[in-house]
Order: sequence, then C-alpha cells, then structure tokens
Amino acid sequence: MNKKPIILVTNDDGIVAPGIRALVHSMNLLGDVYVVAPNKPQSGIGHAITMNTILYCDSVKIDNGNQKEWECSGTPVDCVKLAISDILPRKPDICVSGINHGSNSSINIMYSGTVSAIIEASIEGIPSVGFSLLDFDWNADFEPSKKYVCQIVKKILYNPIPEKIITLNVNIPKLKKEQIKGIKICRQADSKWKESFDKRYNPKGKTYYWLVGEFLNLDEKVDTDEWALKNGYISIVPIQFDLTNYTILNLLKSLNFFILFVFFFFGYIV
Amino acid sequence: MNKKPIILVTNDDGIVAPGIRALVHSMNLLGDVYVVAPNKPQSGIGHAITMNTILYCDSVKIDNGNQKEWECSGTPVDCVKLAISDILPRKPDICVSGINHGSNSSINIMYSGTVSAIIEASIEGIPSVGFSLLDFDWNADFEPSKKYVCQIVKKILYNPIPEKIITLNVNIPKLKKEQIKGIKICRQADSKWKESFDKRYNPKGKTYYWLVGEFLNLDEKVDTDEWALKNGYISIVPIQFDLTNYTILNLLKSLNFFILFVFFFFGYIV
Repeated sequence: MNKKPIILVTNDDGIVAPGIRALVHSMNLLGDVYVVAPNKPQSGIGHAITMNTILYCDSVKIDNGNQKEWECSGTPVDCVKLAISDILPRKPDICVSGINHGSNSSINIMYSGTVSAIIEASIEGIPSVGFSLLDFDWNADFEPSKKYVCQIVKKILYNPIPEKIITLNVNIPKLKKEQIKGIKICRQADSKWKESFDKRYNPKGKTYYWLVGEFLNLDEKVDTDEWALKNGYISIVPIQFDLTNYTILNLLKSLNFFILFVFFFFGYIV
Repeated sequence: MNKKPIILVTNDDGIVAPGIRALVHSMNLLGDVYVVAPNKPQSGIGHAITMNTILYCDSVKIDNGNQKEWECSGTPVDCVKLAISDILPRKPDICVSGINHGSNSSINIMYSGTVSAIIEASIEGIPSVGFSLLDFDWNADFEPSKKYVCQIVKKILYNPIPEKIITLNVNIPKLKKEQIKGIKICRQADSKWKESFDKRYNPKGKTYYWLVGEFLNLDEKVDTDEWALKNGYISIVPIQFDLTNYTILNLLKSLNFFILFVFFFFGYIV
C-alpha cells in the first residue's frame, strides 16, 4: 500500500471510553483515522441495527490527535454503515473496533457490539479487527495492548492475503507487557453463559429481573481462544458471517431428510 | 419421544404479531406451548441482550388456545434466556421463532432477532427452528406456511440426529399453497445490503438519518437460500454459532503469520 491508509475506528463502549481513545492514539500512527462510534455504551447490543427510528451523527472532538470524529446515536453496526455510506471520503482500508473493556472471547462474540462492527465491515468487503482487553475496569491499563494492536493492524494493511478479506477477533489477557507470551491463532471455544436472573420487586410490588450469569467453558482443548488467554497469550480468531453449518447440511442431505419429508408429508398430512 | 413435548415459542415482531399467533396455533397441535416473546416489535435487534437495565416479564393471554404466554420487555434473546432460566418447567424439547413478517434469508440472518433467538436456543443445547415468510404485510397470509411449519417441527422432534443439535433457518416464499414446489436444504447466500441513508433536518435544523438500503444478492449459484426462494421452494439453512473461519485460520497458520509477526515485532518495534 503506497497511499496513506484510511482507518475506520468504532467500538461498543461509547466514543469517550478509554479503550477507544487508546485505539485512536495507536491508529493515528498508521493512517488517516475516522472515528464513528456510539454516543453511549452499547455493550451486549450484538448486530442490532436501527430500522424504526432515526439516527443522529454529529462531528465532535473528544481529545487531541489528528483523527476526525463523529458520535452516533445508533449501534456499532449503524456506525459502520453510516461511516461507509455517508462520512468517509472513500471505502476504508481497514475497520478496527475496541479496545473493548472486557472479554469478547468464545461465545461472547455473539453478544458483542465490538465484534458485530467488524463483521459488518467484512460484509462490506473491508478487512477488520476487533480488539478486547480482559479487564472491565474503566481505568484498565491499555498500554501493554498498544504495540500488539499496531502490529496486527500493520500486518493486515501491508500483508493482505490475495482475494481474502480478513476479519479477526483479538482478545488480550490482563497482563503486564513482559508477561504476555505472544500470539496464538485459535478457534472460538465452545462455551456458554449459565444464566440466572436476579428477581426483584419494584416500589409498586411488580416483579422485574436483572440478567446475571456464570461463564462456562465447555471446551478444554488447547487450540481455543479460552486456552490461549488462560495461558498468557493474545488470542486471534479469524471469523466470518456465513453461519451455514455445512456438517449438518451435508448430513441432512445424505440422510435424505428432504425426500423423507416429502414422502411423510404427502403420506400423512395432505 | 413418548412424553408430550415442551415447545418454546418466541419472535421479534412482538407477541401480538399475526405471524407468532399462526405459529402458536400450529404448535398447540404438537405439544405444550410456552410463549415468551417481546412486548413490542424488535426487528433488526440481532443478538442483543439487556445487560444494563431491568427486564419485565408478565403472564398474559393474547388469544384462545392452550398455550401459556408471557410478554417480556427485552429482546428475543432475553426471552429465550428468561424462559429457560425462570419460566419453563423444564428445558424445552424445541424452540421455534417467528413466523417472521419478512425474509430472514442470506445476510439478513445477522440482523434478525427471529434467527438470534434460535441461535441462543442452540447455545443452550436446544433444537430450534426460525420461520420467516417473505411478506412484510401485517395481514400476510400464513395459512400456506402452517403445514410445512408443523411438519418441519415434527421432523426435528421425532427424528433427532444422535449427538447433533439441529438449528434451522427456514424461509417461506410468498406463494399460494399449490405454488410452493417443496423444500430445499441450502447454504446461506453471499449477499449484502447496499446502504444509503436518507438525510433530513429536524424542526430545529439538526441533521438526522433514516437507514434505507437495497438488497444485493452476490451469489448466483443454485445451492443457496436465495435461489430456492426465487424458484418457489421453501429454504432450510442449518446454522451454527461457531463463527470461526477455519479456511482463514488454516491459511494464517500455513503462512506462518504468527512466526513472521514475532520476528517483525521484535525486529522493528521493540
């Protein structure tokens, strides 16, 4: 790449979160930075889009640096769509999201606005990387992350794989710089949240619920993001938006699921 | 299955939508039905969950039938979590979602609350089917869908594949009963929305945006859901929550992406 890259930055913790400020600071070293990010926290918003109401998107200046910034009333996915459609001077060379305050490893990928933003970019044919630090604290230390963040983005920008759009979900353990052992390319661990709801009563006696839960890693193998993070590595999971389960697809076809269905259908129902 | 199945029903159009009423009517023929669905439309909400505010969930009776019903202030995924955790007498035998007013084929899967509900059920190890009719009209005709819906659910309930949790995204063309040619097991077509935003000014002169867009099918092959639907078939796409892109994962490993990274990293950055 000869021209200066255009870098789209977003997140789901909101445009003033320290995690995105750290990311903006790093990206300013690598290209022309356009920040289009939610004007409020959007954790757990997943791939939601705003269809039935309007969006505001206003130019702002949050802190020092060469970046151009817009805060948007919508979701992270709205931010990516609006940035590409109406704000950026051309299609960006990369979209980065985060640095999220807290893990987006394994099944958390499904609920994460940070990750959904990079998936949306990949639908648009834009390479993208989501970064998350395993520290929920607003005052989390993003310093150990910065050089890895820069290096991963540089790899994607300057060493593209021909005809492949790379979409990476990167999680960084809460460790000091010298404690991070390196990087592992991983698959998404099989995990889930074991939900419970904290049932309470409002001042008028009406029942309400708070979602609480316990994270369960059901996958003890060593090729997963959970394993990498527990063992001091940064995890990188390449991800995609094709949700087709080809194993089941081929199984259903080989079992003649459809043929059986038609027979059964005409035999018993019609 | 000897005992009467427990069927969890939800959607994203809201508990009073004609599509879910049609689904409830059909499911009452097959088992003990528990409806836990949003109290308002939630189209485009994706896999969002409610983390930072409270949920209400109230017992209601919307229409006739043996179903038990609750309306929830949260998202479709919240409904599934709350149903399993606090409402149902035991883990359901199946979760069905829909019938959605409008397509959830191909890339629409990412934005759909209807589909996210069945993905959440699959994370919980529950077989699940999402149904969508290619008709946005509130007064859409769900009659041609009903017998297919019943038959697909019966197949999953009474012909499970050992050790596999089946999650199916089913789309039904807007056709008369006799025009539907049958069922195709498909993969998710490669498609996207080409976004544009309708830019307007509020009464105080401030800019706001409406999301609009044009659907683009980039995939002309005959094994996709888009092809099936355009050619008069019901499409069934088996889906999954593992977003790992194994092709890219293996490629990155074979290219020694990680090794190169470490070399470059220590050589130029530290």
